[in-house]
Amino acid sequence: MKILIVNGPNLNLLGKREPHIYGSRTFQSYFDELQAKYTGHTLRHVQSNCEGGIIDALHEAAYGSADECRADAVILNAGAYTHYSVAIADAIAAIAPLPVIEVHISNVHAREEFRRHSVTAPVCLGTIAGFGLDSYRLAIEALLDNQ
Amino acid sequence: MKILIVNGPNLNLLGKREPHIYGSRTFQSYFDELQAKYTGHTLRHVQSNCEGGIIDALHEAAYGSADECRADAVILNAGAYTHYSVAIADAIAAIAPLPVIEVHISNVHAREEFRRHSVTAPVCLGTIAGFGLDSYRLAIEALLDNQ
Amino acid sequence: MKILIVNGPNLNLLGKREPHIYGSRTFQSYFDELQAKYTGHTLRHVQSNCEGGIIDALHEAAYGSADECRADAVILNAGAYTHYSVAIADAIAAIAPLPVIEVHISNVHAREEFRRHSVTAPVCLGTIAGFGLDSYRLAIEALLDNQ
Amino acid sequence: MKILIVNGPNLNLLGKREPHIYGSRTFQSYFDELQAKYTGHTLRHVQSNCEGGIIDALHEAAYGSADECRADAVILNAGAYTHYSVAIADAIAAIAPLPVIEVHISNVHAREEFRRHSVTAPVCLGTIAGFGLDSYRLAIEALLDNQ
Amino acid sequence: MKILIVNGPNLNLLGKREPHIYGSRTFQSYFDELQAKYTGHTLRHVQSNCEGGIIDALHEAAYGSADECRADAVILNAGAYTHYSVAIADAIAAIAPLPVIEVHISNVHAREEFRRHSVTAPVCLGTIAGFGLDSYRLAIEALLDNQ
Amino acid sequence: MKILIVNGPNLNLLGKREPHIYGSRTFQSYFDELQAKYTGHTLRHVQSNCEGGIIDALHEAAYGSADECRADAVILNAGAYTHYSVAIADAIAAIAPLPVIEVHISNVHAREEFRRHSVTAPVCLGTIAGFGLDSYRLAIEALLDNQ
Amino acid sequence: MKILIVNGPNLNLLGKREPHIYGSRTFQSYFDELQAKYTGHTLRHVQSNCEGGIIDALHEAAYGSADECRADAVILNAGAYTHYSVAIADAIAAIAPLPVIEVHISNVHAREEFRRHSVTAPVCLGTIAGFGLDSYRLAIEALLDNQ
Amino acid sequence: MKILIVNGPNLNLLGKREPHIYGSRTFQSYFDELQAKYTGHTLRHVQSNCEGGIIDALHEAAYGSADECRADAVILNAGAYTHYSVAIADAIAAIAPLPVIEVHISNVHAREEFRRHSVTAPVCLGTIAGFGLDSYRLAIEALLDNQ
Amino acid sequence: MKILIVNGPNLNLLGKREPHIYGSRTFQSYFDELQAKYTGHTLRHVQSNCEGGIIDALHEAAYGSADECRADAVILNAGAYTHYSVAIADAIAAIAPLPVIEVHISNVHAREEFRRHSVTAPVCLGTIAGFGLDSYRLAIEALLDNQ
Amino acid sequence: MKILIVNGPNLNLLGKREPHIYGSRTFQSYFDELQAKYTGHTLRHVQSNCEGGIIDALHEAAYGSADECRADAVILNAGAYTHYSVAIADAIAAIAPLPVIEVHISNVHAREEFRRHSVTAPVCLGTIAGFGLDSYRLAIEALLDNQ
Amino acid sequence: MKILIVNGPNLNLLGKREPHIYGSRTFQSYFDELQAKYTGHTLRHVQSNCEGGIIDALHEAAYGSADECRADAVILNAGAYTHYSVAIADAIAAIAPLPVIEVHISNVHAREEFRRHSVTAPVCLGTIAGFGLDSYRLAIEALLDNQ
Amino acid sequence: MKILIVNGPNLNLLGKREPHIYGSRTFQSYFDELQAKYTGHTLRHVQSNCEGGIIDALHEAAYGSADECRADAVILNAGAYTHYSVAIADAIAAIAPLPVIEVHISNVHAREEFRRHSVTAPVCLGTIAGFGLDSYRLAIEALLDNQ
Repeated sequence: MKILIVNGPNLNLLGKREPHIYGSRTFQSYFDELQAKYTGHTLRHVQSNCEGGIIDALHEAAYGSADECRADAVILNAGAYTHYSVAIADAIAAIAPLPVIEVHISNVHAREEFRRHSVTAPVCLGTIAGFGLDSYRLAIEALLDNQ
Repeated sequence: MKILIVNGPNLNLLGKREPHIYGSRTFQSYFDELQAKYTGHTLRHVQSNCEGGIIDALHEAAYGSADECRADAVILNAGAYTHYSVAIADAIAAIAPLPVIEVHISNVHAREEFRRHSVTAPVCLGTIAGFGLDSYRLAIEALLDNQ
Repeated sequence: MKILIVNGPNLNLLGKREPHIYGSRTFQSYFDELQAKYTGHTLRHVQSNCEGGIIDALHEAAYGSADECRADAVILNAGAYTHYSVAIADAIAAIAPLPVIEVHISNVHAREEFRRHSVTAPVCLGTIAGFGLDSYRLAIEALLDNQ
Repeated sequence: MKILIVNGPNLNLLGKREPHIYGSRTFQSYFDELQAKYTGHTLRHVQSNCEGGIIDALHEAAYGSADECRADAVILNAGAYTHYSVAIADAIAAIAPLPVIEVHISNVHAREEFRRHSVTAPVCLGTIAGFGLDSYRLAIEALLDNQ
Repeated sequence: MKILIVNGPNLNLLGKREPHIYGSRTFQSYFDELQAKYTGHTLRHVQSNCEGGIIDALHEAAYGSADECRADAVILNAGAYTHYSVAIADAIAAIAPLPVIEVHISNVHAREEFRRHSVTAPVCLGTIAGFGLDSYRLAIEALLDNQ
Repeated sequence: MKILIVNGPNLNLLGKREPHIYGSRTFQSYFDELQAKYTGHTLRHVQSNCEGGIIDALHEAAYGSADECRADAVILNAGAYTHYSVAIADAIAAIAPLPVIEVHISNVHAREEFRRHSVTAPVCLGTIAGFGLDSYRLAIEALLDNQ
Repeated sequence: MKILIVNGPNLNLLGKREPHIYGSRTFQSYFDELQAKYTGHTLRHVQSNCEGGIIDALHEAAYGSADECRADAVILNAGAYTHYSVAIADAIAAIAPLPVIEVHISNVHAREEFRRHSVTAPVCLGTIAGFGLDSYRLAIEALLDNQ
Repeated sequence: MKILIVNGPNLNLLGKREPHIYGSRTFQSYFDELQAKYTGHTLRHVQSNCEGGIIDALHEAAYGSADECRADAVILNAGAYTHYSVAIADAIAAIAPLPVIEVHISNVHAREEFRRHSVTAPVCLGTIAGFGLDSYRLAIEALLDNQ
Repeated sequence: MKILIVNGPNLNLLGKREPHIYGSRTFQSYFDELQAKYTGHTLRHVQSNCEGGIIDALHEAAYGSADECRADAVILNAGAYTHYSVAIADAIAAIAPLPVIEVHISNVHAREEFRRHSVTAPVCLGTIAGFGLDSYRLAIEALLDNQ
Repeated sequence: MKILIVNGPNLNLLGKREPHIYGSRTFQSYFDELQAKYTGHTLRHVQSNCEGGIIDALHEAAYGSADECRADAVILNAGAYTHYSVAIADAIAAIAPLPVIEVHISNVHAREEFRRHSVTAPVCLGTIAGFGLDSYRLAIEALLDNQ
Repeated sequence: MKILIVNGPNLNLLGKREPHIYGSRTFQSYFDELQAKYTGHTLRHVQSNCEGGIIDALHEAAYGSADECRADAVILNAGAYTHYSVAIADAIAAIAPLPVIEVHISNVHAREEFRRHSVTAPVCLGTIAGFGLDSYRLAIEALLDNQ
Repeated sequence: MKILIVNGPNLNLLGKREPHIYGSRTFQSYFDELQAKYTGHTLRHVQSNCEGGIIDALHEAAYGSADECRADAVILNAGAYTHYSVAIADAIAAIAPLPVIEVHISNVHAREEFRRHSVTAPVCLGTIAGFGLDSYRLAIEALLDNQ
């Protein structure tokens, strides 16, 4: 299975930003471990701080001309865009039936009120939030089970 | 690890209710498979249509006098109570630091507007929704990783 | 036709509570008259102050193992739960296509603002409100016509 | 008993409009059957697409100079005006204590959100909704019992 | 000065409706007294239960072809339409700079919440409410002073 | 193609009302030009200040007994009723699949907040607003293309 | 009749503030003219920028120990406090049945949205707004008629 | 005086739950002290996590057949149900004129926004909140004074 | 213990205002009785209709230069200011940790909707409402217990 | 006339995405036909999934240094950004008086509630929605008429 | 330049209140330093806990009869009144074109939700918040630059 | 001190856009003057119409690898993104404790309602708005004082 992980705004700072909270581990390091764990599957990782960049990545997963760009499923952590980017939600709908799973590192429901509303969740297959970086692994588990 | 699965209102009808949608599998049958899969761990299952019954089950997981009632973690599908039972949310807070994971069979965000708001999620460890019965297995995976 | 009448919270006090308003007639007395009037049909009456108890009664009407528990239709006065019990609404949906009619003794629209919203009405066959105890008889009339 | 049935906007199209949904029966045909059923009572039927026309009909029921215009009770299906015509609600209040029953053919609670709010219901005796054309007969039953 | 008094829905029932509240005086009787009081001025009175009828009357006051239809000012009691008829508000704006004064017999602020909002007041010259039928006389006083 | 243009409240004042804003051209003059431009097609024009009158015109377009009353499509400028007349919206739905296009002379989005919401647009084929009287011509263009 | 006129915040600037809008006439000058016009009656004028000062003035009108402080009626222009001072509204209720009329110089409905809501109007006898300084005279007219 | 203390959801955990916050004292221990203090009066204590259980207890206080179940007054800490249980509010109204006092251990106004709204308070005699367990004693003081 | 009682707007009218409702007892008379009851403690009473006057009194209780002005605790009935005076709420916070108890004579929850929200309660120690003048005594009881 | 067509997020997928709904025609193909139809005019087409890209394109239309970048008018389909991009709305205002017409392929009013609100429409010349790709041609028609 | 600094409720406690947060510096001490820094300009300082007192100070700045009372500009920290005093906002508008700058010591946007809304800011020249006492100096800098 | 000025959408048009309002000065020209004024400090300027571009610039200020990219403080005018970009707010939080000051050229509170809410202000050090280009200089003054 080819799985694309799309990370949104500020997630490039993992490992740098507030290490006492988020730990000193970069996403790349976690990603490598994840790839090692799921050897039979191909993982790819794209990060963008730009709403348009995330949309492009989603489009490419479904319609990309290069074979290695296309994916069988997407794991999306759209960060703050989760709460207002109708454009990303439309992009998810536009690449259906490609399955997209929404993940969050923190428990977004335990934070500010506005983080409890997701405009992208309704067009995703499912959502996983609150398990730290392990949320990404659980999403892979869900995809493999779903096959 | 001792894990208590608490199912809320109408979930006793799984397998009976609308089999073309929910399948003809009862929760008991799924539960047996789950227990078989996680042999080193003890799973227990409680279902109640009553808000108070769910609160009792949560209390017992933390403070139950009988050893087999107590649990190391709870997987909670509070059904419709998810959206308005502050009493259950208070019960989850009252048994902290016992970890509680909120699960849903369907993608609640893709249904009626009021199902997109959870009053219990803020006091849970994390949430998993939309993966059918597999949501429960993912919650166990999350707990085991979290140990 | 087997018809189950389900009465919700505080309706057990009919005849006791504020007799200058609600009259001194108990629901049982009215129920006996109703049964006498519809001799060819079987009426059953369940009352519960507990949200879970009402859900149980609805489940039993559709899936009860004892033949006398099952019904061909339900007349439901969910009392105050009408306005917020999504769990009861889910139970009504879960026993479809069993017809459920929502009744109210008083004209709920002429009372406090919050009583003008029913979360259960959308999944019922229809609603009848404001005719005193006669609302129940009208519901039976509706069911018989609907056969 | 003299009963006036007032039908509001678009109800003149019954039997013509979307026959696969509403059936091919005109209201006149149903009305004739109803009159035949309640031979001891006098039914009259007025339909208007105009808010003012409905108000006029309600006024006439109470204060009409011609004897055959006045009625002992009104059955009102105000159609879409139900949801915003404060003027019709005022007219109902202005002809009190003449009883007015609000009826709807469809279960208005199961449709768009705005159809769940009635500005006229608070000043009516009671409401009946969701039983197709039979809602009108149930209203007559309610009135006869109420005498 | 030629003054047109436009009365909206249900105001034709003054003197008939609830005489213990509104008195047994018809508007015509009050109008005659008013005309007698302001002998040097011409008063005209139009009543309509129909939103469109009120709009027509307002148009005629400004653009009527017959001289006796046109007026120098309008006193408008739009009744319940006050609270939602954007169409009447547009008509008032469309006949500017003809002055229109909004009057109400009762103190609309002391009644239901929705009566505290007027969609027509912003395009009127001013508003007078709560003085019974005397509100109309005060409006005439205001107009004469404003000349 | 037979096209019915329905104009709502206050639109009869075009050319009279505030000529410095709306110009001194009456709708009739524009309509004649329009008819001259689309010689192969039959245009008809109805204006009403009354909500019920607009509903009647829409009904007639679909079900009128006289052949010249019926139309193949409707262009509707419901004026202020656009923002609250659920009754007109229901009428549009009731005459489906007859295509109805909503037009506005001014850019309603650039005016008061309440003018940005249309209750009729959801049941129309499409909407055109802000191009002055030319909005009507564009609607005809749209209909001809849609054939 | 002894009439107390209470003016609220910023009304002391009449005649000074923006004379191109409000004119160069002070309230004192207008007040003198008013007293001259109603010779048989005693007018008194109090102005305060302080919410508490206005409450004191209202109390004194009803319960003042000095005879010249008490009044038979109050004309109140509470200025901006109109829109939020529940304390002044309570004071008006506390001096009932002393009649209080709310007046405004400008048409408050034609200004900012928040000025369209009055917390004091529900406990006043009536309201007059939009007639410039003449609003005060109209209030006196209303009081004299009301005697 | 016979006083019934009704405690709602999660209050059974007092003394167990978060002892650093709530102290290690159980409600029973506090209750015994309270009874000892008010020797001339009879206190009874009921706790339920179930909405229906609380309603039953309230009913019994007014209409219980056993003499020791009935009470002269009720002190109610409905816990989280305070904020949404219309059913409990209806039960309080249904046992009027039996006085019910609402108490809370913590200052509910200083916590989450939703805890600042009580649906039960309007039908209670009064409310006491924020004084720890002493809130119960103050309620008894209020009742004794109220006799 | 030195306790300052601060009464807000309109509370100076107790005993004068609507004696059939509030009784003919002045606050001074009640206060004298209260002082007599709690002989070992010093009570002081300040009343102001002015928001600023209440703030001054609160400041003085904490920082007053004269020894007799300072207090060990405050009982505050801010009257209508309770519902909107953020300035008084800030003053309460500014004199922390001096304990302030909010009291109300009537059950504010049983009155208009806006009276159910207190902006001052979150920064108070606790609240007592609905017990008539006895609310003040209960507050003293609470303070003495809290010592 | 030089006309710039700006297409927003996901519109690059036309022809690829859900061909059973949107058809198998790419925008390029439609654009070529459009250019062929309006031979005397110059059309240019820009598409961007990025909010900033759309703003850049709008700026260039007004202030672009290259002559072929500048345009006499803009046709804008901002896709999902229509509903929340204040930044694009500001860009439209910033290039005034360059006319911008808002177009939509689908009838946005017949879809989710949030699609019924456009933040960009108030600063556009007009809006056209619901006519499929033909909406673009109608916008050109509107521009040519507007010249 | 003559600059008046107006401080609102509770700001008299600076230096006394919570010194660990606000420091032990009184506003007078800061003010003296400020005056020393801007020797060529005249600073004056007024503080009031009373809404009316602040209005009076603003009026005096523009229209005061004594020369030393009038000012060329005002720096206003209205404290809590910022969020609801329409009366102060009206006073600012009434003294236009006298420039008023709104300052806050803390970053009001980082505190409670209601502190993020200012009713006075729209009629001020500009706003400065979050820089501690230095906010006042920045306002002087802004005024000097603005001359 | 190294200070980064980040300008958001449409601010690149300063000097071009509406020169009668914004003047004909480009930001570059103002920036040069500013740098000349603060010779001992290093100013850098970045402008982006893209949300992601602004996030990138903020990240670089804290974590940029090139020394000249990093800054000691940021002055941010996020333009329209101020009102909805949670992603930019998250970026500001992610680079804490680097101080960020929010500036606006116009008084955003005096414009449309939606411009009065800033999602970025709560995570900034402070805000300065309404002083034209001088707002940037004041921000530098604030930073230098804050050192």
